[in-house]
Amino acid sequence: MGSIVVDVMLKPEILDPQGQAVGGALPRLGFSGFTDVRQGKRFVLTVDGDVTDEHLAAAREAAEKLLSNPVIEDVVSVRVLEQDSEQDEDAEQ
Amino acid sequence: MGSIVVDVMLKPEILDPQGQAVGGALPRLGFSGFTDVRQGKRFVLTVDGDVTDEHLAAAREAAEKLLSNPVIEDVVSVRVLEQDSEQDEDAEQ
Repeated sequence: MGSIVVDVMLKPEILDPQGQAVGGALPRLGFSGFTDVRQGKRFVLTVDGDVTDEHLAAAREAAEKLLSNPVIEDVVSVRVLEQDSEQDEDAEQ
Repeated sequence: MGSIVVDVMLKPEILDPQGQAVGGALPRLGFSGFTDVRQGKRFVLTVDGDVTDEHLAAAREAAEKLLSNPVIEDVVSVRVLEQDSEQDEDAEQ
């Protein structure tokens, strides 16, 4: 069972009030050193079996047509989810 | 100027109506082959200069305390954003 990750972010010129709220809260909670925060969306699309080039092409098209609003958002990446690497990241924390 | 990406997803056992809505819309728009869709959040935290281990540690702590609700969400990754790789992904589309 494979998965594809699609990352969607607001375009840089679009105001991001959610990100601003997080960015304002960070120093109040003692987290300094961050100059900007932007919040976007992350989709995980699951397919039966391994991810093929056809799946990736369909995911790219779906990302532009359904998962993002191209007027205000950019699809910043469409890639195969590597399960092991994410588990490693989790384990590091 | 460096950036850190924090990915947050609902825990697998938590119902995800947004993801289900997307998953239901995909076949109607002609995108078949996807068995499940989950929608999560992606934060990009920007720092002055290069990302240090201190920045990453602060981002990991902020991810658990502020960016996610540990009752229903998992922080699936906290990593340095590699600008070039994202641009490459964009260029591929």
